[in-house]
Amino acid sequence: MSATFTAEQIDTVYRVIAERRDVRHFIPGDVDETVLARLLQAAHHAPSVGYMQPWRFIRIASPALRSALVALVEAERVRTAEALGQRGAEFMRLKVEGIRECGALFVVALADGRDAHVFGRRTLPEMDLASVACAIQNMWLAARAEGLGMGWVSLFDPDQLARLLAMPAGARPVAVLCLGHVEQFYPRPMLEMEGWDTRRTLADLVTVDGWDKRGA
Amino acid sequence: MSATFTAEQIDTVYRVIAERRDVRHFIPGDVDETVLARLLQAAHHAPSVGYMQPWRFIRIASPALRSALVALVEAERVRTAEALGQRGAEFMRLKVEGIRECGALFVVALADGRDAHVFGRRTLPEMDLASVACAIQNMWLAARAEGLGMGWVSLFDPDQLARLLAMPAGARPVAVLCLGHVEQFYPRPMLEMEGWDTRRTLADLVTVDGWDKRGA
Repeated sequence: MSATFTAEQIDTVYRVIAERRDVRHFIPGDVDETVLARLLQAAHHAPSVGYMQPWRFIRIASPALRSALVALVEAERVRTAEALGQRGAEFMRLKVEGIRECGALFVVALADGRDAHVFGRRTLPEMDLASVACAIQNMWLAARAEGLGMGWVSLFDPDQLARLLAMPAGARPVAVLCLGHVEQFYPRPMLEMEGWDTRRTLADLVTVDGWDKRGA
Repeated sequence: MSATFTAEQIDTVYRVIAERRDVRHFIPGDVDETVLARLLQAAHHAPSVGYMQPWRFIRIASPALRSALVALVEAERVRTAEALGQRGAEFMRLKVEGIRECGALFVVALADGRDAHVFGRRTLPEMDLASVACAIQNMWLAARAEGLGMGWVSLFDPDQLARLLAMPAGARPVAVLCLGHVEQFYPRPMLEMEGWDTRRTLADLVTVDGWDKRGA
């Protein structure tokens, strides 16, 4: 018999899911190392395709490397604005990262040597990334519960970041994670508050037995 | 001031993360529709790159479609065993899905029209999949809290599954999700219990300031 969760505990799980935010605004302060260790353990307890555990976590401790990351992300932010055309100026007004201010900084990568893992990946090789994303989501939820903000930044050139961190061939960085203290968690997703987009109606995203078939 | 989580609530979050399992063994019984609706809401509260919300959920209600899914997965299971070479026979002895037995069955897909979303995806277009994986992880954790098992099956040909469900060009199925009642949750990951692989030592997956640099 497996341990069950009480109604109150179930509510807590839904609450942390609902109140998790992609955070870009941090206040100064180091992050407790024991808390960081718990967050990484939470990540490591994610599911992974064929149990391959493809994740690697690189803590960025050096101020010089942190500055290099800021520069990489800034360069991509400008290129993204150009690619966005009409919405470029609006995009440039958004705060899209908190790399300089956050208390702890990580790069998360797909490990090298993934081709050896075929289970669940023969036709869907990208399942390795899905596993890493599950690990990051675990970390995000655990951070929210601990009262820490976390942001996932994907505005960077992965090849340049791989070189910066001396990654071997076959490894690929997929996230810059900013972690730190916050004045408050956004009451709604920041991109919604800023008018970038709105939350879709869930019923529009769920169908039955086919792409366009609505349920009863 | 944002609402905080008590020490007990924080423990609950870590507990659901630790006790979530990728489930392949189900016992008969329908899944309560109000619980399913809560799970889908949890999924829909995942983070998404540039707030694009690229997820689509297709409930498989038709017995004929369920059988077609069983056949698709069985075909890929055999091809995977062939591709695995030496470990093929060992793989064939594993239970890798519970499509026939589970109480509720979903296909999760990346929506079409994703090229319009550039924010956070210019250099890392695969971030759409990362968002969908976060949504599925939310659903998984919520299901575990509710006492329901869930399994993510990625043993299928995505093009065939897309055709089966009349997906438009540009959409891509990434998960078959089995949900249902369980006799118990595996005490450890099933692939670990079955000797397929072991859990890595977390310290081996965390470095500081570069790929091979261990921390203090």
